[in-house]
Amino acid sequence: MTLRTVDWKDNSVIMIDQTKLPNELVFVKYTDYNDVAQAIRTLVVRGAPAIGVSGAFGMALAVLQSKSETKEGLLSDLEKAKKTLFETRPTAVNLSWGLEVIMKIAKQSDSILDIKESVINKAKQMADDDVQTNKEMGKNGAELFHNNDTIMTHCNAGALATVGYGTALGVIRALKENGKNIKVIATETRPVQQGSRLTAFELKNDGIDVSLIPDTAVGYTMANGLVNGVVVGADRILRTGHVFNKIGTYQVATMAKQHNIPFYAAAPLSTFDLTSNPDDAPELINGIITEKGVAKVPYEESIKKLFQAND
Amino acid sequence: MTLRTVDWKDNSVIMIDQTKLPNELVFVKYTDYNDVAQAIRTLVVRGAPAIGVSGAFGMALAVLQSKSETKEGLLSDLEKAKKTLFETRPTAVNLSWGLEVIMKIAKQSDSILDIKESVINKAKQMADDDVQTNKEMGKNGAELFHNNDTIMTHCNAGALATVGYGTALGVIRALKENGKNIKVIATETRPVQQGSRLTAFELKNDGIDVSLIPDTAVGYTMANGLVNGVVVGADRILRTGHVFNKIGTYQVATMAKQHNIPFYAAAPLSTFDLTSNPDDAPELINGIITEKGVAKVPYEESIKKLFQAND
Repeated sequence: MTLRTVDWKDNSVIMIDQTKLPNELVFVKYTDYNDVAQAIRTLVVRGAPAIGVSGAFGMALAVLQSKSETKEGLLSDLEKAKKTLFETRPTAVNLSWGLEVIMKIAKQSDSILDIKESVINKAKQMADDDVQTNKEMGKNGAELFHNNDTIMTHCNAGALATVGYGTALGVIRALKENGKNIKVIATETRPVQQGSRLTAFELKNDGIDVSLIPDTAVGYTMANGLVNGVVVGADRILRTGHVFNKIGTYQVATMAKQHNIPFYAAAPLSTFDLTSNPDDAPELINGIITEKGVAKVPYEESIKKLFQAND
Repeated sequence: MTLRTVDWKDNSVIMIDQTKLPNELVFVKYTDYNDVAQAIRTLVVRGAPAIGVSGAFGMALAVLQSKSETKEGLLSDLEKAKKTLFETRPTAVNLSWGLEVIMKIAKQSDSILDIKESVINKAKQMADDDVQTNKEMGKNGAELFHNNDTIMTHCNAGALATVGYGTALGVIRALKENGKNIKVIATETRPVQQGSRLTAFELKNDGIDVSLIPDTAVGYTMANGLVNGVVVGADRILRTGHVFNKIGTYQVATMAKQHNIPFYAAAPLSTFDLTSNPDDAPELINGIITEKGVAKVPYEESIKKLFQAND
């Protein structure tokens, strides 16, 4: 997949509309940071690293949109954009990171012209860096697996969750590029089905052998010796080792532990939160691997959606 | 729910077509045992106890359909019907039990007329017994839970899985009848969604407080202290204590163990298989609670279905 999920072209942000996948590959173009915020909220773009870069590109749009003629005015407009973008996913550490990096660059610049140029260049560089980071991560992660392994993954931590290449699926791509014969088991990942809609789609597109299972079949496949290892992405990783990720990750990790199957989370440095403690956020729960901090919201929404779908 | 999922009326078998639930409550009428076999295969009727009684009613239709004028001929026709009905679910112990009970009654009878009468009466009695057994089981099971408990259940072991009242949900009905304030968390139970289509439907109909969760949220709800106990039905229980049930039961049980939450299986004696060993069936797996023996077939079918739905 050489396409980028989020990119910058002719002073616009171009995104793959992931809500249309796998049925249609549709690109959307934004020139207003409010539309980027809405795209994050409505899952047009998702995946922690992709959201981080989307936030940065949203800030790049904001500097172009600003009509202010003073540096202070432009920085104030940027702060406003930062707040709007941050509030789309207040618990997403990569988003917060992306916005802070841009804000810092803007503050260090001397003139309005300098801010515009440095912010846009930094956002573009963050997108390039994301792809490069994933390739290096894939190379490192590939050493943890072996030829003929079957690897389970949950949710989508693929090219579609990043700017390109992927975190967890980057490891799988690197294994394939190394000539290893591997198979992937993707969980469906209800309620939003990132596993069937995105992961299975992405891997099939790359010619990687992928089987889709319902989330209920994780224990069955592991107990039957069908899984050699698990690799997932992460929304946030604390210095205590707590990993926050899509609802269901905790039980996949627990089942892996029960069956002595190695379990890895693949994530770039921007996913690490070295200041928070597990007790800081009330939504954190016990266990070596916990659900992501924002799980409460989509979880309750999912219940509503399920009821609506089945009422 | 005073309706019966399977009943006998005017020499016909009447079933609720569960594939139409929860959108429509449709009754179907069969006078040919081959149609009953097809109904079992296509999940018009499902749930181990309901299938056992459906098999018996299928045999009752077979005695009426037989044109044989000798006892031997009638028994031979019945053996043929038994084979057809058995093959719809070769691993379902209740079905095998229901067919054997009827076959034994038929063999013990003296004349053609005697066979017809005793087989039909026995099948009707088995249906009545199922409801009575569930009510007693509910009464016993209710003692395991407390006022204000939230009880998780997986799949549907309700009135719709039995002739009436239910096994696991019979326990929940009994708690409510005892004036206890209880809440139920039902898992969606992918891929066929018996939890959302049947359990949530059934409990809402009875005015019992039920929340539906995706199968991925089992660990999250347990880790957050939202579950006081789990009760499920069973397809087969061995004397070793191994419980066979819907795909996903094993991981719900493992998560319950991880969080010291009591886990119960509610099942009538006809679900017990006191002769097999866990090693007898190649599809058996390790663990205190295992997936049901037929999991391999629906599991692979489910993968195909998921792919078709998402391709």
